[in-house]
This record gives sequence, structure tokens and C-alpha cells, in this order.
Amino acid sequence: MINFSINKAFFIQALNTTKRAISSKNAIPILSSLKIDVHSTGITLTGSNGQISIENSIATSDENAGLLITGTGSILLEANFFINIVSSLPDVSLDFKEIEHSQVLLTSGKSEITLKGKDVEQYPRLQEVATSNPLIFDTKVLKTLIAETAFAASTQESRPILTGIHLVLTDNKNFKAVATDSHRMSQRKLILENSGDNFDVVLPSRSLREFVAVFTDDIETVEIFLSGSQILFRSESISFYARMLEGAYPDTDRLLVSDFETEILFDTNNLRSAMERAHLISNATQNGTVKLEIVDGKVSAHVNSPEVGKVNEEIDTLEIDGSDLTISFNPTYLIEALKALKSETVRIRFISPVRPFTLTPGDDGENFIQLITPVRTN
Amino acid sequence: MINFSINKAFFIQALNTTKRAISSKNAIPILSSLKIDVHSTGITLTGSNGQISIENSIATSDENAGLLITGTGSILLEANFFINIVSSLPDVSLDFKEIEHSQVLLTSGKSEITLKGKDVEQYPRLQEVATSNPLIFDTKVLKTLIAETAFAASTQESRPILTGIHLVLTDNKNFKAVATDSHRMSQRKLILENSGDNFDVVLPSRSLREFVAVFTDDIETVEIFLSGSQILFRSESISFYARMLEGAYPDTDRLLVSDFETEILFDTNNLRSAMERAHLISNATQNGTVKLEIVDGKVSAHVNSPEVGKVNEEIDTLEIDGSDLTISFNPTYLIEALKALKSETVRIRFISPVRPFTLTPGDDGENFIQLITPVRTN
Repeated sequence: MINFSINKAFFIQALNTTKRAISSKNAIPILSSLKIDVHSTGITLTGSNGQISIENSIATSDENAGLLITGTGSILLEANFFINIVSSLPDVSLDFKEIEHSQVLLTSGKSEITLKGKDVEQYPRLQEVATSNPLIFDTKVLKTLIAETAFAASTQESRPILTGIHLVLTDNKNFKAVATDSHRMSQRKLILENSGDNFDVVLPSRSLREFVAVFTDDIETVEIFLSGSQILFRSESISFYARMLEGAYPDTDRLLVSDFETEILFDTNNLRSAMERAHLISNATQNGTVKLEIVDGKVSAHVNSPEVGKVNEEIDTLEIDGSDLTISFNPTYLIEALKALKSETVRIRFISPVRPFTLTPGDDGENFIQLITPVRTN
Repeated sequence: MINFSINKAFFIQALNTTKRAISSKNAIPILSSLKIDVHSTGITLTGSNGQISIENSIATSDENAGLLITGTGSILLEANFFINIVSSLPDVSLDFKEIEHSQVLLTSGKSEITLKGKDVEQYPRLQEVATSNPLIFDTKVLKTLIAETAFAASTQESRPILTGIHLVLTDNKNFKAVATDSHRMSQRKLILENSGDNFDVVLPSRSLREFVAVFTDDIETVEIFLSGSQILFRSESISFYARMLEGAYPDTDRLLVSDFETEILFDTNNLRSAMERAHLISNATQNGTVKLEIVDGKVSAHVNSPEVGKVNEEIDTLEIDGSDLTISFNPTYLIEALKALKSETVRIRFISPVRPFTLTPGDDGENFIQLITPVRTN
């Protein structure tokens, strides 16, 4: 029967990490549970929503955990409720003791709380991933490239493959991440420090956003394993499993052409705030577009929502080259693209009013490129 | 035709204060508008939801406003939309100019935004309050007594009068504020520094919570005027009107009796966290009560929710006097009562398991008293 004591703050932190995989509104009710496995050398906390699963280990050897185990076993507890109860306990540590009939007695200070649990046999078995030959990634680099691409993935289930991020490794070290919802696209390239086996997979952008939340900045590197339909991201204490999306990802390389007619370098914040004003007005109409006019080296933005009002605004440029052009597009796409860009300046290249335009950071035209499709207007 | 320029940050602050009276989902659509009146010496911004109205004045004489008026008039603008637009403007100041057909041209930096407004004739006339013979209140004192009582008012419309706070002035300076939802009651008494005409009114607790948000701590005193069915709270730049509730408020004085059987002094935070643990478990059942047992000078709390679990906990006391007692009640009421109490200690007096018990601050038994009705259990 389970019996351990642990530092409360440390336990809460581990519980909250595991909770990110647990939804209280899951279609499979047992998945609202947290699984606690206590073995002789530590505790494993498991949560899953069917799409992602998180296993979080606390070792008796970790001094910060203050973990003392005197009895082993496994139990399921309602995750949210259990975490709230643990958070409310009065003392800096707590005793967790399994008593008869899958019941748990928590003791902390002068407080004794008895909770009903469930038999661990009811919990589904998580798919196993073979852990050989890992690809080792710098955590911050991986989190950055997710932030740079995930927002461009589709949120519509009509084409499920577009809700994912396409991750490709070629020549053992050329890494590429791409997301598109068919209106805009974002692609980050990277040459890896540690080479690995080539792969070509699509992971749900939602799962990768959870990865970003779970792997905090103090975790320096993460090991990646691929097997079957699962990917495993692993650090010393956390194993994060995500299910891959099935199906062929569209060929996005053909969208990136190198010719252009007009090239402008903007201050990123300046362009972004102009687009935010445009969006406030354009948002009031169904069409919802902003018109960008490039005439004689001057750029101006225009929105006209007959019921609400209009915007006319000149936008300063840092450099401008090429032909005059008038192009209309959804300002939301440009705002989100500029948010993803950490560079102070942005280079935009236009081909024609009906062809997608590209954005690259002012200081790096090679590795991070975004693309926005214009809207045809009359 | 309206024409003025103003400091953007100052204007946004005034707009946000006025917006607190404006709901975008009002049953009367025109009340989602902000009314802007520009006269030769300043601007008045007006918002109302029918229950409360706020008039906010910006004077040309206020140097921080940077207000320069070159044309006067009045216009209605969609409040939320207008505030978002003003907030998005690029420069530190803006020009506001009325052009043809109730249209407004906003200019700031290189941005020009045209907005459609409405004719001010469509706006309802706010009831006037005669402003003679004010009662002068210290703003912080007034805000504190609202915080101490408003939470105890009812949120149910079944007895509308209980959604209010009963405010009474007798002998020109004995002030009393009471709120009750019939399960608990909170009463604050106060002797005013400045005497005034006696009154006996009931104000919606929701309106008074808005008062707390609108009158920031830098406003030292507030003038209060009563006339007809309205109350007006006025500072130098803000006039806050609230409609009174009609009907007789129940006689709450008869509930306060001076005899008691058991008296306990608790550490406020200690009791509160014990009740929060109890609430987590009691909340899972319909009954939802905690049982407090006082036996031989020891106090313990007990909750048993058969489906979820149970709590048993000893609660430390600072002083304890009188008979043994077992009493059950909703822990939420005690948690909220303790939150309203700024004192480090709380004195609780019990009469019997079926009669309300009282809470007073450990350091002041006279002026602030709360009462909670127990739940009869078998």
C-alpha cells in the first residue's frame, strides 16, 4: 500500500506539469484522473488526454523533493480535485497514505483529509516508444521554432493535416518546420548541432504548444524519439508523448519563389501598430481587408468600413525598391506574422496584387520566411 | 462643430472611468454609446446603463490634459469601439474634429481615422439631482465600508430589496451600513466627522461596487447628495449617479442579541485556511456544510462527502470560553466573512446550534459585526 511523505511545493509543481495533459471534460471519463505510481526509488505522475501524455518522475534522490517512501503501489485520483486539495494543505510537507478500498489519507499539520480514488486497472495503457538513438535538441531553440510556426497552422478540422506542424530532417542535420492554414505560411530552417536519423512527420500544433508550456527554460536539452505514430520528448524528469497526424503534408516549397517586383524594409513595431489600427476598423466588416498602396516611394494603408468609419495612414519605410503596387489582405495575418518575428525590422517582398508576399527578418533573409496570400478586391 | 486636441493617455484614463457605467449588451441599444459634450471650458464624457450614470469632466485648465478646444458641440460614439481606436493611436496626443453628418475625424501622427457617430438627441436625459447641502465623506472610509458589507447582499432577484445595502444616518452623524441575503449579515457603524441631514436609503450593492472601482484612492473626499430616487457621489471631476432601490428594508437590529454561550478568539488566517479545505470537500455534496465541534476547550472541523472524501481537522484557538457546542454551517459564508475582516484575529460568539453566530474583529467588538445562520442537520 502506498505510503510516502513529500515537500508540498515540490509536489504541487510536479502535479501542475502533469495536469497540462489532463482535461476535466474528456470524452473518456477516466482520463480526468491522475495516475500515481509509487515504486521504491520514486514516484511517477501520469496524465493523458489521448492526444498527449505526460509522465513526470520525482526521485527519492532529489533533495528538493523531500521524498520518503515507506510503501509502494498505484492509484488513480481525480486530477483537478486532488491538486486543489494538496494546494490547500497547511504544512510545508504532507503524508500520503493509501488505506482500504482505494482510499487515500492525506495528513498535513493538524489536517486529515480522506479522498476516494480508483483502481489503477481502469487506466488505459499508453503506447510505448522505443528509446534508442535520440535526437538531442536545445530546448530553447525548439520552443522558439514552435512559437515561430505554430500560430500559422489551421484551427479548422476540415483539413486535419493543416492543424499540424510539418517537421522534416534531411541530410541528418538540416531541420525544417512549416505550418500553413492555406492563407498564410511560416517556415523556419535550422542546421542541427547534433545529427540524427532523417524523418518527415506532422505533429498537432496544439500538442506542440503544450510542449512549450511543459518544458520550462531551466531544462537545457530535450531528447526526441520517434516510433510508430508517436513522438516522445524526454528530459531528466519529464516524458512528453504526442500522437502524430496521419496523411501527406502539402508541398509548401513550391510556394516559395525567389522573384519579386517590390521590396520594402519596415520598422516591425511601426508596421504592426498601423495594422492594429487598420484591424480595429476592418474587423467591423465582412470583407475585413486593409489596402496597402505603394506609390512613388510612399506606403499608405487604407480601410473603409462604410458602417463604422475609415482609416488612412502613411507608413514610414526604412528602404523601398521596385514598382508601385496596390495589394489588399487580412491585417490579422500580418499582425500575427509580425508578432512571430523577433527582429526589429522586417523585409517584405511583393510580386503582384494577386500573388502571396513574403516576410523575412531584416537581419536574416535565409532561415525564417513567412508568406501571406492577398485578397482579391474589385 | 467639435474640434479639440488632447493628451492621449489622459483622455484614455477618463474614457475608461466613464466606460464603467456602459454595457455593450444593454437592452436599450443607445446606452452602448458614450456621450461627448464639448463646451468652451472643457469636455464632459457621459455613460449610463440605466442603473448608474457617470459624468467625467476634463477642464482646459487641467495642465495634464493638454486640452485645447477650438470648436464646441455634442456627439454620441460607440463606447468600446471608440476607446479601442483612441488606445491604438500612434502619437502622444490626438486631434478630434467633427466633420459632416455626425462624423468624427481623429488625427494622430500620420494616422487619420474617420468614425461614424450618432446625433446626441437620441441619448436619454439623466435624472437631475439637486446639489445643495452635501454630506462629505472620506473616500477611503466609504470604500472600506462598502467592501465590508456589499458581499453579504443577495444576488437573487427574488427579493430585490436584499440586493441592496441599507444606508442610514441618524442623529446627523451616526452612520450605519447593513447588507444581508437572509443567510448572513454584515453591519458597519461609523460616527461621521461631518454631520448631515438624516437619511434611510437602500442602494444596489452592484452600483456601490462600481463606485469603489471608479473613485480611485487619489480622490480624498466625495460629496453625497440625495434627491428623489437618486444618489449622487461627486468629486472634482466625476459625478456618479445611482438609482435607489424602492421598498422597506427588513429590521436587522432585532437579529443582534447580546447573550451568548460560547466565545472563541481565532487567528483569522488560520481559521480561513481550515474553512477553505473544508469547502473543497463540502462543495462536492448538495448539503455542503462543515460541522464545527467544540469539546473540552478543543475546536475541530469535520466534513463528510461520501462520494469524494472527508476532512477532520483540529483548529487552534487563541482564547476559548463557555459551553461545548456542535454547529453546522456553509463554510463559504465563513470564508467570505473572514475575507471582509481586516483584523488579524476574529471573535466568534455562539448561542446554540440553531441560532445565528456572530463575528467581530478581535480588536473592535463595537462597530463591525457579522452574523451567519447555521444549517440544521440530523
